[in-house]
Amino acid sequence: MAGQIPEMQWAQVFEKNNGPIEYKQIPVPKPGPDEVLVNIKYTGVCHTDLHAWKGDWPLAEKLPLVGGHEGAGVVVAVGELVNDIKVGDHAGIKWLNGSCGACDFCMASDEPLCGQALLSGYTVDGTFQQYCIGKAAHVARIPKEVKLDAIAPVLCAGITVYKALKESGARSGNTVAITGAGGGLGSLACQYAKAMGFRVLAIDGGDEKKDMCLNKLGAEDFVDFTKQDVVATVKDLTGGLGAHAVILLAVSEKPFQQATEYCRSRGTVVCVGLPAKARISAEVFPTVVRMITIKGSYVGNRLDTQEAIDFFKRGLINAPFKTAKLSELTKIFKLMEEGKIVGRYVLDCSA
Amino acid sequence: MAGQIPEMQWAQVFEKNNGPIEYKQIPVPKPGPDEVLVNIKYTGVCHTDLHAWKGDWPLAEKLPLVGGHEGAGVVVAVGELVNDIKVGDHAGIKWLNGSCGACDFCMASDEPLCGQALLSGYTVDGTFQQYCIGKAAHVARIPKEVKLDAIAPVLCAGITVYKALKESGARSGNTVAITGAGGGLGSLACQYAKAMGFRVLAIDGGDEKKDMCLNKLGAEDFVDFTKQDVVATVKDLTGGLGAHAVILLAVSEKPFQQATEYCRSRGTVVCVGLPAKARISAEVFPTVVRMITIKGSYVGNRLDTQEAIDFFKRGLINAPFKTAKLSELTKIFKLMEEGKIVGRYVLDCSA
Amino acid sequence: MAGQIPEMQWAQVFEKNNGPIEYKQIPVPKPGPDEVLVNIKYTGVCHTDLHAWKGDWPLAEKLPLVGGHEGAGVVVAVGELVNDIKVGDHAGIKWLNGSCGACDFCMASDEPLCGQALLSGYTVDGTFQQYCIGKAAHVARIPKEVKLDAIAPVLCAGITVYKALKESGARSGNTVAITGAGGGLGSLACQYAKAMGFRVLAIDGGDEKKDMCLNKLGAEDFVDFTKQDVVATVKDLTGGLGAHAVILLAVSEKPFQQATEYCRSRGTVVCVGLPAKARISAEVFPTVVRMITIKGSYVGNRLDTQEAIDFFKRGLINAPFKTAKLSELTKIFKLMEEGKIVGRYVLDCSA
Amino acid sequence: MAGQIPEMQWAQVFEKNNGPIEYKQIPVPKPGPDEVLVNIKYTGVCHTDLHAWKGDWPLAEKLPLVGGHEGAGVVVAVGELVNDIKVGDHAGIKWLNGSCGACDFCMASDEPLCGQALLSGYTVDGTFQQYCIGKAAHVARIPKEVKLDAIAPVLCAGITVYKALKESGARSGNTVAITGAGGGLGSLACQYAKAMGFRVLAIDGGDEKKDMCLNKLGAEDFVDFTKQDVVATVKDLTGGLGAHAVILLAVSEKPFQQATEYCRSRGTVVCVGLPAKARISAEVFPTVVRMITIKGSYVGNRLDTQEAIDFFKRGLINAPFKTAKLSELTKIFKLMEEGKIVGRYVLDCSA
Repeated sequence: MAGQIPEMQWAQVFEKNNGPIEYKQIPVPKPGPDEVLVNIKYTGVCHTDLHAWKGDWPLAEKLPLVGGHEGAGVVVAVGELVNDIKVGDHAGIKWLNGSCGACDFCMASDEPLCGQALLSGYTVDGTFQQYCIGKAAHVARIPKEVKLDAIAPVLCAGITVYKALKESGARSGNTVAITGAGGGLGSLACQYAKAMGFRVLAIDGGDEKKDMCLNKLGAEDFVDFTKQDVVATVKDLTGGLGAHAVILLAVSEKPFQQATEYCRSRGTVVCVGLPAKARISAEVFPTVVRMITIKGSYVGNRLDTQEAIDFFKRGLINAPFKTAKLSELTKIFKLMEEGKIVGRYVLDCSA
Repeated sequence: MAGQIPEMQWAQVFEKNNGPIEYKQIPVPKPGPDEVLVNIKYTGVCHTDLHAWKGDWPLAEKLPLVGGHEGAGVVVAVGELVNDIKVGDHAGIKWLNGSCGACDFCMASDEPLCGQALLSGYTVDGTFQQYCIGKAAHVARIPKEVKLDAIAPVLCAGITVYKALKESGARSGNTVAITGAGGGLGSLACQYAKAMGFRVLAIDGGDEKKDMCLNKLGAEDFVDFTKQDVVATVKDLTGGLGAHAVILLAVSEKPFQQATEYCRSRGTVVCVGLPAKARISAEVFPTVVRMITIKGSYVGNRLDTQEAIDFFKRGLINAPFKTAKLSELTKIFKLMEEGKIVGRYVLDCSA
Repeated sequence: MAGQIPEMQWAQVFEKNNGPIEYKQIPVPKPGPDEVLVNIKYTGVCHTDLHAWKGDWPLAEKLPLVGGHEGAGVVVAVGELVNDIKVGDHAGIKWLNGSCGACDFCMASDEPLCGQALLSGYTVDGTFQQYCIGKAAHVARIPKEVKLDAIAPVLCAGITVYKALKESGARSGNTVAITGAGGGLGSLACQYAKAMGFRVLAIDGGDEKKDMCLNKLGAEDFVDFTKQDVVATVKDLTGGLGAHAVILLAVSEKPFQQATEYCRSRGTVVCVGLPAKARISAEVFPTVVRMITIKGSYVGNRLDTQEAIDFFKRGLINAPFKTAKLSELTKIFKLMEEGKIVGRYVLDCSA
Repeated sequence: MAGQIPEMQWAQVFEKNNGPIEYKQIPVPKPGPDEVLVNIKYTGVCHTDLHAWKGDWPLAEKLPLVGGHEGAGVVVAVGELVNDIKVGDHAGIKWLNGSCGACDFCMASDEPLCGQALLSGYTVDGTFQQYCIGKAAHVARIPKEVKLDAIAPVLCAGITVYKALKESGARSGNTVAITGAGGGLGSLACQYAKAMGFRVLAIDGGDEKKDMCLNKLGAEDFVDFTKQDVVATVKDLTGGLGAHAVILLAVSEKPFQQATEYCRSRGTVVCVGLPAKARISAEVFPTVVRMITIKGSYVGNRLDTQEAIDFFKRGLINAPFKTAKLSELTKIFKLMEEGKIVGRYVLDCSA
């Protein structure tokens, strides 16, 4: 198989932050002993990629950089130490490209918290190229019956919301309120929540989103924040007690400061979205006497990844996407900045 | 035994908020079918009692009111339905005097969250009297080998900090940072934490408190917020990672906004103290990517109560107190307002 | 309303074990201060009732006895202390009729383990009568939109299997093997498991049960123990690893000694069924090195009860039953002893 | 440093099961890219080593074999991929030498359950030699202030009992009964249990062990199985309810069949010891209605290892041992077979 790997490949390269993105040929990298080389067939485009290009996050990044962290493809080469994944297997490159494997967090399966974590399309080259390196321990194992274009967005957005739902501590039968339920993360969150046995209370704005949440994503109720008093309505829909858990996917600050008010006593508010410079805030008194929990949830670990893929494989998750070509990344970024994308774009890397 | 119960008793009565507190004779109440009458031997005096008298909390209270919620004494009468506690047993009246027993929270042993909860010395008459009513299901069972004066403060402060430590999710061997470690709640928290197998990192101000925390309360380290950079020092003492849990007993707002910074990734900040109008606040970004949990912890449930008493009975907790007479309550309140009380006052109700 | 309660009522009375069961008029009991009187509309008939009549269990029982512990009806009177359920509400009498409310187990919401527990149709009179007493804290709250005949079997069988599934520690997406999946408990267990997000691997015998499990109860796979090697087949269906949890509903001993072999490492075998004199047994070596858990699960607590009813109310559980009259109990017992009952019998108590 | 590694070293080699054990010079192995080479200073001798030599366990082993799996020493070489441990660091070789790192169990931090696990002194050469290979991800990190001879037995026995105590689900303040409390595993278990905040109820036989358990190991009570009725006495010491958890370290079968009887309802019996061909056994009826859990606990994972070492480093664990020379292994095996060893032998590998 190794003979089939070309010397050069097409890639989208960020030479410097906010600079021109060059679509050009670069060398195909070679995997180290504990790495695999994945021929990326499709890659999702995520808001985080836009941040990586702009460089407006408080995290140092590699430059020049090949962005992208939702890549699905075929393993074409493996390092000498790799024996649990082989050439021909399907694999995914996700945000967490590698971790030290030995720190307190890695030992506890909390590798996303590893201080030495490698981040695809951020601190190491990512999936906006035809051949991408991943640490063997971290590449997602993708069953062959799963379509590589459809699974791409699950590798970031799907894992993230699945993890947040696990972290919520909700049990089957509990009501989980999801803010931003009709958005990219939200539409996946609604479906995962339903598959996990939760009752979904979707919060978003507009009749189109209402229709989608109730009729396609499995939500039992919808609260329209543009028309309704969110706190009063959620309480009303939950016997006066509030939701067992709230998943905050919104990218504005207000929901972060309001969520504890419609969360049930002893319930949990899970923060996932990352509105710029936002603060979580809550009054101490009710938080204490109602024993509310507020927690952050980041991306999933390797096991969460495989579980999230398993739900998808079972046909329980439908993540709508449009396809474009790898060469069109700049155009997609533009649409994204203009807020014109509904659902997710997936790039075909074959040419 | 019933013959020994007098018709009248001495009590401290708040006729109206902020008004004169009258030390006078009032009738001894009679227990209902599911209640017990406790001859209070000693009662602690807590800051909450001061709030009850002033009426400056956002919770409706009974008026006129007998305050107090840390009472230890002897059962002198029981209602007809009571068969698991009997005349002559030692019992404690605590903040939670009763609860509905049937709501979702009561069914889940979270009776402090019951919407119908009765609060001693707040919504029902409390322990600043010689004979006090408690719901049988809720009065603390006090073993006879435990001294009634010494246990009184444990019935509120002890249970509260024990609960917070349980809620922290810390495991034995973990480092727990306690803010306000040298105060009334804090000194109990340090001792409970040590008895639970945690490593205590005490945070407070001044050399006297440092000495007490390190040499009497079992703390392994002390951080003086008046002299040291708390965030940097805690990290330095914990291998750069921060404390596994932080227990916020402080009554000022700043620690509530700083604690996430010296809490370890995946760690938990437990809010207990109730500084007036304070808000919890944290940046969303690090809270999410470090997966920090912030939670409120209120008073313990009935099981927590018995466990907290059990630690005390085993000699692991030493709660220093001074004794005064029930008739001297007004004087104690004055000292309390002037911030002149070190440790806890316990009132002898015998005269 | 009280005027509508008759002095006398029809009841089925076991005068002595294995003796004649008399269908006769007896006085309507009066509720104590913490009790309610329920006009039973329908009552299920359970194998346990047969044991109660025969007296072949190692537990002392009341005699003469009115059996039955799956009764659904309408509250017609409440004691003076009862304020969270009122005349006209729908309520269920279940196996656990009352508990002390104050022991370590009751305080921890493990009231089924209370040493003073009252058992309906066993240590106190049960639901084979028109008017039955229940402790207010324990009667199941039944929403009015739920049919009283259909809910009756859920009050014992449904709660029990729901509890066992919770106790299994399985998470949504995990595979749960259910032995006896096509039986009375099993058919409910399959449906609850699916509603909780588990993947059901049904184990039972015969094509009829196979069809029912796969096409009506939501199982993903079926293993026929009369035709297949259970251990090998379960492993084969679970990637070689075994099921995450096994729920043992069988009433023969063999599955209790075999289940650890097809349970995944770190998995849990939950024992529910009570085959006479059976023993759980497993080799120490593989149990240790594979870290297998074996545990017993009894009936649910009050919260489990309400949750199990909630799943039913949402239309996720369908418990097929046939109806007979209260006067026909003896006939039903006969059918039961002959093993001729498929599904559950529910008795109409109206006449 | 690499220059200091000799070509040849002394080792104890099992050529075939039950055959002569040869103390001879063999080549020093070279670490692969993800491995480290540890210059073993001291190695414990464990019963498992005797089984490895005899080959009487149902697990295939490497032959010829260098046994041993409790080795403490200094890292003298590291593979090219290793960057979190370096030459000069202190490290321990334990039973689990390596694992695949990518299976469901490894992803969940349950690497002891990995199907590809490498076992020191069993499937790969172990610590009865001067230079031993370990996977970098798995060698224990030993702080320099810890003595290498004293820590050796902790690397197997200490980790194992610490893990079992964690698995017990007991909380601080709970009573944990330890069978075989005065033996090699037991004496460590008592000390770890106390350090974790448990109350230790030691079960063993003889006055010498009684004295040791009560006066040196921190037990609160001692039950002598040679003189007392274990079930009745444990219940008597625990208010009639039984112990919250039982840790079975015994190497005879009887305790495995008796432990559920003195375990509290809702309690957990943890099986650790591996008596040959023994079976766990319990009556189904009481196991179900008392909701007893029986579980197996194997060795700890990497995090358990570091935590167990941390307790030792803090001075809370004292593991008595005698020292011999590596050349004397055969003699130690003989003493072991004759049951003449009290405490643990540690071999000095320097000559």
